Amino acid sequence: MRVVVLLSGCGVYDGAEIQESVFTLLSLSQRGATVACLAPNIAQQTVIDHLSGDEQPEEQRNVLVEAARIARGAVSALEESDPSDFDAAILPGGFGVARNLSDYISAGSDCKVLPQLQIWLQTLRDARRPIGLLCIAPVLAARIYGAGVSCTIGDDPGTAADIESMGARHQSCAVAERCIDRERRLVTAAAYMLGQSPMEVWQSVDGLVADVLALAGET
Amino acid sequence: MRVVVLLSGCGVYDGAEIQESVFTLLSLSQRGATVACLAPNIAQQTVIDHLSGDEQPEEQRNVLVEAARIARGAVSALEESDPSDFDAAILPGGFGVARNLSDYISAGSDCKVLPQLQIWLQTLRDARRPIGLLCIAPVLAARIYGAGVSCTIGDDPGTAADIESMGARHQSCAVAERCIDRERRLVTAAAYMLGQSPMEVWQSVDGLVADVLALAGET
Repeated sequence: MRVVVLLSGCGVYDGAEIQESVFTLLSLSQRGATVACLAPNIAQQTVIDHLSGDEQPEEQRNVLVEAARIARGAVSALEESDPSDFDAAILPGGFGVARNLSDYISAGSDCKVLPQLQIWLQTLRDARRPIGLLCIAPVLAARIYGAGVSCTIGDDPGTAADIESMGARHQSCAVAERCIDRERRLVTAAAYMLGQSPMEVWQSVDGLVADVLALAGET
Repeated sequence: MRVVVLLSGCGVYDGAEIQESVFTLLSLSQRGATVACLAPNIAQQTVIDHLSGDEQPEEQRNVLVEAARIARGAVSALEESDPSDFDAAILPGGFGVARNLSDYISAGSDCKVLPQLQIWLQTLRDARRPIGLLCIAPVLAARIYGAGVSCTIGDDPGTAADIESMGARHQSCAVAERCIDRERRLVTAAAYMLGQSPMEVWQSVDGLVADVLALAGET
């Protein structure tokens, strides 16, 4: 099973949530999948000091280059990758999803997905390959799958309302649960949108990986 | 059990090895420990582009601020922390150990440990609290414990020779094994010095955490 892990940088406030990303890599490794990390070769929307929470307006970082920190260098540009090479894709969360992979941070329910990512994921979707979205990443579900898709970000009311207003159906889930849209082959889980500890988030991520691989095996 | 995870930045080539750091946090969470992440509040020795492997001489980053990416903001300055508040400490690997926590990268077996870290760890040592060193971090063992301490970095001949020439005893270990110096209460494991996959490195890290907590329980 060849699975893509799509990274949006390196750090929860301006990139990929690191722990969710690493747990995805661990679960895929334990389950015997062949993993490729991908990230868009674009500038980060912003750089945030993760100690103070402040923006660092003088800093500029690249999403692909920073994602390489999580992947120990083994990451490729999304733009140079062919979705038909893969059986499934998983997007960890982190504000990078809302800042770099889309403009959800500023546009809310009017958000657009990064064009090259939208095309890439919709090619996977059209091939009936499963996709897993963690944490905040399910805000992209309606843009990828269209109206009527079911997903969860846990139970945050504001985010759930945005998801509904984009045309998706939000299903409240506990941290140990996943929402599975079997028709569309989409799996979503709350991870750090709800999880209170690495242990809880590991359970969320590992469960999502298991579900995505099971769906990929049915293809 | 109150355990410190000592971070040296965020990224294998110029900071803490991210996967080893996250696996340490997961294992401690699963085993019910209370975790505090610490890092020195100092400038990084260098910044490395993890995609190309090149140094980025125009960039400057701070070890504590970058470590906050792994810890989701929940990290404190080593310099403001009291070692007597903790039952054990674990240092993940990554070149940050050799660049930021010591000058091993340039000085080899003549290396010095960052003074505030040396004092901090020796206070823990003197209180008979266990310490776990992962990956390349065991190169600091002789500086912390003095001659005769036993440790492993796996089986890399050059690094093992440096460790021996500093006065420590290097014990070759497979990735699934740990070296335990019971007298000094030091546990070491190879992690990514030998591991070929996240699964193997998780086993190395989780085993070390189990051993450190067992020793802490004997104190």
